[in-house]
Amino acid sequence: MSKAERTRQLIVEKTAPIFNTGLTKGSIYGNFANKDEVALAAFDHNIQKLQTIVRDEMVRQRTIRDQLLVYVRVYDNFMKHPFPVGGCPILNTTTEADSTHPQLKSKVNEAIIDWKDRVTRMIEKGVDAKEFKPGVNAEQTALTLIAMIEGAILITMATGKLNYRKAVMNSAEKLIMGL
Amino acid sequence: MSKAERTRQLIVEKTAPIFNTGLTKGSIYGNFANKDEVALAAFDHNIQKLQTIVRDEMVRQRTIRDQLLVYVRVYDNFMKHPFPVGGCPILNTTTEADSTHPQLKSKVNEAIIDWKDRVTRMIEKGVDAKEFKPGVNAEQTALTLIAMIEGAILITMATGKLNYRKAVMNSAEKLIMGL
Repeated sequence: MSKAERTRQLIVEKTAPIFNTGLTKGSIYGNFANKDEVALAAFDHNIQKLQTIVRDEMVRQRTIRDQLLVYVRVYDNFMKHPFPVGGCPILNTTTEADSTHPQLKSKVNEAIIDWKDRVTRMIEKGVDAKEFKPGVNAEQTALTLIAMIEGAILITMATGKLNYRKAVMNSAEKLIMGL
Repeated sequence: MSKAERTRQLIVEKTAPIFNTGLTKGSIYGNFANKDEVALAAFDHNIQKLQTIVRDEMVRQRTIRDQLLVYVRVYDNFMKHPFPVGGCPILNTTTEADSTHPQLKSKVNEAIIDWKDRVTRMIEKGVDAKEFKPGVNAEQTALTLIAMIEGAILITMATGKLNYRKAVMNSAEKLIMGL
């Protein structure tokens, strides 16, 4: 296939589900001002989809440790969950949301800070409840966990090797078990 | 600024260094078949630049532990090193090199496998030389270290917070010190 043919095929693959639901370009731009507005709404949708998966799994856990392990399990098995198409919206959007789309950049920023704050509070709560050892740096651990998860997805995206993601997720699990 | 003005400014910023060296579009396409060929050569250039920085720092270290710590130091202080403009070429290229550019995708894949193999061998060598504890899973540790570094860069790229990268790099250092 030539480059032009591959691009053409990619566009068809990506837009096929849209046309399959009866949406036309006219109906999209009748509801959104431009492509940037669609990208913002799509990011919100994908993040909310992810948060719903995580929340639904978390309410079934009894300990904070098990709740933290939900992140590892959901991201390591996201083929089994109704995960957003294309993988992690944070990873996919960070390198794309450059200075030409400041609103999208701001949304990715908020999503990471929000995730980091939520995990930090969970760890602090675990320490307060004496489920975790005292003296842990909660924010550093939260950031490390997020970095491991996103890095693991990146490595598997680049190499296609699912066992590489699995290996890093094992380390993330070890980090949580050591709290 | 409107979206069009921001895009215009970004193009000017990115191409300014090229025109500054006297290169014209004509001279680029006189030497490369197309934009894809330029992207491949640019990726090779940036990866080699990175490897040179790492190698130059490594030869000054006496222990394998100190050699491994070079990765953490170089990536954590890459503003101080003559790092490729724009950050980590692996991170920036992974989400861009989709199915429309299989050669670039293949290069990113090779770069990660090569990095992972090199770190794995260093850890194995450290175990053989009794510098590291026995029984470590060298490949899992190598992948975890790479995921932490790439994840840390991603978090700082998305949030602009250098101290978040620093926090994750502290965890990476701890991982190496615990070997």
